[in-house]
Amino acid sequence: SLLPDTLRAALDRAGVDALWVSSPENIRYLSGFTSGRDARLLLSAQPTLYTDARYTVQAQEESRFPSFIARPPATLAHAAPAVEGLRVGFEADHLTVAELERLRAHWQAGERPATLVSTSRVIDTLRQVKTPDEVARVRAAQALADEAFAAVRPFIAAGVRESDVAARLEGFMRERGAGSAFGITVASGPRGAMPHGTASARVIGNDELVTVDFGALLDGYHSDMTRTVAVGNPSEELRRLYRAVLEAEEAAVAAVRPGATGGELDAVARDLLGAHGLAEAFAHSLGHGVGLAVHEGPSLRAASADVLVPGMIVTVEPGVYVPGVGGVRIEDLILVTEDGHEVLSRSAKELL
Amino acid sequence: SLLPDTLRAALDRAGVDALWVSSPENIRYLSGFTSGRDARLLLSAQPTLYTDARYTVQAQEESRFPSFIARPPATLAHAAPAVEGLRVGFEADHLTVAELERLRAHWQAGERPATLVSTSRVIDTLRQVKTPDEVARVRAAQALADEAFAAVRPFIAAGVRESDVAARLEGFMRERGAGSAFGITVASGPRGAMPHGTASARVIGNDELVTVDFGALLDGYHSDMTRTVAVGNPSEELRRLYRAVLEAEEAAVAAVRPGATGGELDAVARDLLGAHGLAEAFAHSLGHGVGLAVHEGPSLRAASADVLVPGMIVTVEPGVYVPGVGGVRIEDLILVTEDGHEVLSRSAKELL
Ligand SMILES: [Mn+2]
Ligand SMILES: [Mn+2]
Repeated sequence: SLLPDTLRAALDRAGVDALWVSSPENIRYLSGFTSGRDARLLLSAQPTLYTDARYTVQAQEESRFPSFIARPPATLAHAAPAVEGLRVGFEADHLTVAELERLRAHWQAGERPATLVSTSRVIDTLRQVKTPDEVARVRAAQALADEAFAAVRPFIAAGVRESDVAARLEGFMRERGAGSAFGITVASGPRGAMPHGTASARVIGNDELVTVDFGALLDGYHSDMTRTVAVGNPSEELRRLYRAVLEAEEAAVAAVRPGATGGELDAVARDLLGAHGLAEAFAHSLGHGVGLAVHEGPSLRAASADVLVPGMIVTVEPGVYVPGVGGVRIEDLILVTEDGHEVLSRSAKELL
Repeated sequence: SLLPDTLRAALDRAGVDALWVSSPENIRYLSGFTSGRDARLLLSAQPTLYTDARYTVQAQEESRFPSFIARPPATLAHAAPAVEGLRVGFEADHLTVAELERLRAHWQAGERPATLVSTSRVIDTLRQVKTPDEVARVRAAQALADEAFAAVRPFIAAGVRESDVAARLEGFMRERGAGSAFGITVASGPRGAMPHGTASARVIGNDELVTVDFGALLDGYHSDMTRTVAVGNPSEELRRLYRAVLEAEEAAVAAVRPGATGGELDAVARDLLGAHGLAEAFAHSLGHGVGLAVHEGPSLRAASADVLVPGMIVTVEPGVYVPGVGGVRIEDLILVTEDGHEVLSRSAKELL
């Protein structure tokens, strides 16, 4: 069999003989093929990558599994003999209802129909724990983002458009061969009350806070960091928000270690913000895993039972958002190590 | 009812009382809310946008429908009374199997269960025909892309990295307040044989062809254009490929008019390339619609029965790919008008 033992064991745990992989990140993770959005992977004793003729050369160069070039539904017809009589899992969190209907039509019509089994996070769970090579890639992406922030930080000033700050960050990363991990947030003044407002045409004013949330995408792997910086002399109310978030963030980061659960870490930050009367203003979860996807497991949110283990890379990103006033978010990227953690994001957190 | 008549009619045609909208582009199209990836829309007599607390302010500012702030599954519980006894469509091409299972659990447990109905392209079909305002946005995105190409074209030369060409295009668009519509393709020399290879670290050589496929993303709307340019004096073999693709492209563009089908247009280009012995080398479909998504309907591919009508915006993009030798693709962005078409992409197509 061409199937590595760890993958065989994962299929066994899921109770399936094979897995129809439709998540682009999972396809890339398993096969090395970088255009997973236009591909499917049948993970079985003889794994096969399916993609179309636009990618004939690329599939040969990149995929560690043999590829078959066809467009759906010819792909499903080709796979049909290979799945006869098997229990075939599908990724219920990714597969569309329409595609499941096509799998049924192609794989359950014959004399030895496949049994289709709903699965969840079979490969995603494996991806949470990074190999040393993967850690090195995320580390490199974050190091580049730190460099970009250092280069662009002096440019964040009154009179500058939010979108110009974003353009400079993106330009810096592009020049270094990286992409932007997601739409960059640059939220100034009252726009800081929008946790995920991207950069707008708004001109940054004096005595405002500016929240900058961005990451690099390098070699398939992401980084993710947020800094909130002061322009001029923000009000004492804004400074109070900043100190509260920084206190919560540092406490939660300090608690990152193997064995901690996502729920426990979320509670560390949420309880501290609650003590400042800011529980309601912390309108999202504490953090998430980062890797081939910028948002992946484990989940650091209220009541999450996800347990941290060495090799996971997670964000810690408490924030508070006060409509009409503004907001603060501080986010670090953290590697879980054998005896605790290492903070990968190095940009300063002093409110200058 | 808050539901516009055109939407009411679309639901009637689909045989449903309401539609659970999960496609991010469809959510944006219907509601105006720009973060559709983190939202759902219940399109019914009283439409409701569902999103989470990160977007409280943004939903109030952007959505033309009332919003309810909650994370799943609280959203489904809130919607349950509103869908009692109704026929509720879901978007089978977008909805995941796992989410359908959650809809069933929340909406079919009570005494007056909803009937869940698989639908396809109910809203996508409406989106294919652009309003004058939408045409203006795509036109503006393409005009910016043409400007970017004119500015960067002199920089495409032997000794320059592909990724540097991509960075300049992206930087130009960023400075003008736009994003990149998708990962930019810059494929030089033998890499031209990869229809969708993005820009690599490869240094462009002399006497090569360079295929550049890119678009602007402005105000939610995309453009899409490909040019293949010569560096130095490419071989006669490469020039022959270029002339064949240009001939096929211009013939297909000339055939764009109301009433033409996607399959007919694809055949125009495919037959001409076939006459040059290049049918096999044309390894993808002719084109696609462009709007809120960079790839949307109508489909211009072999046997497509999609009929062009005024207001559609489509690409025409034949290409040939010869492993070990190189490739050519030429793509224009075309508006279907009452009496034919208008070419929105203006960059020159001479092989300099
Ligand atoms: Mn984050
Ligand atoms: Mn295109």
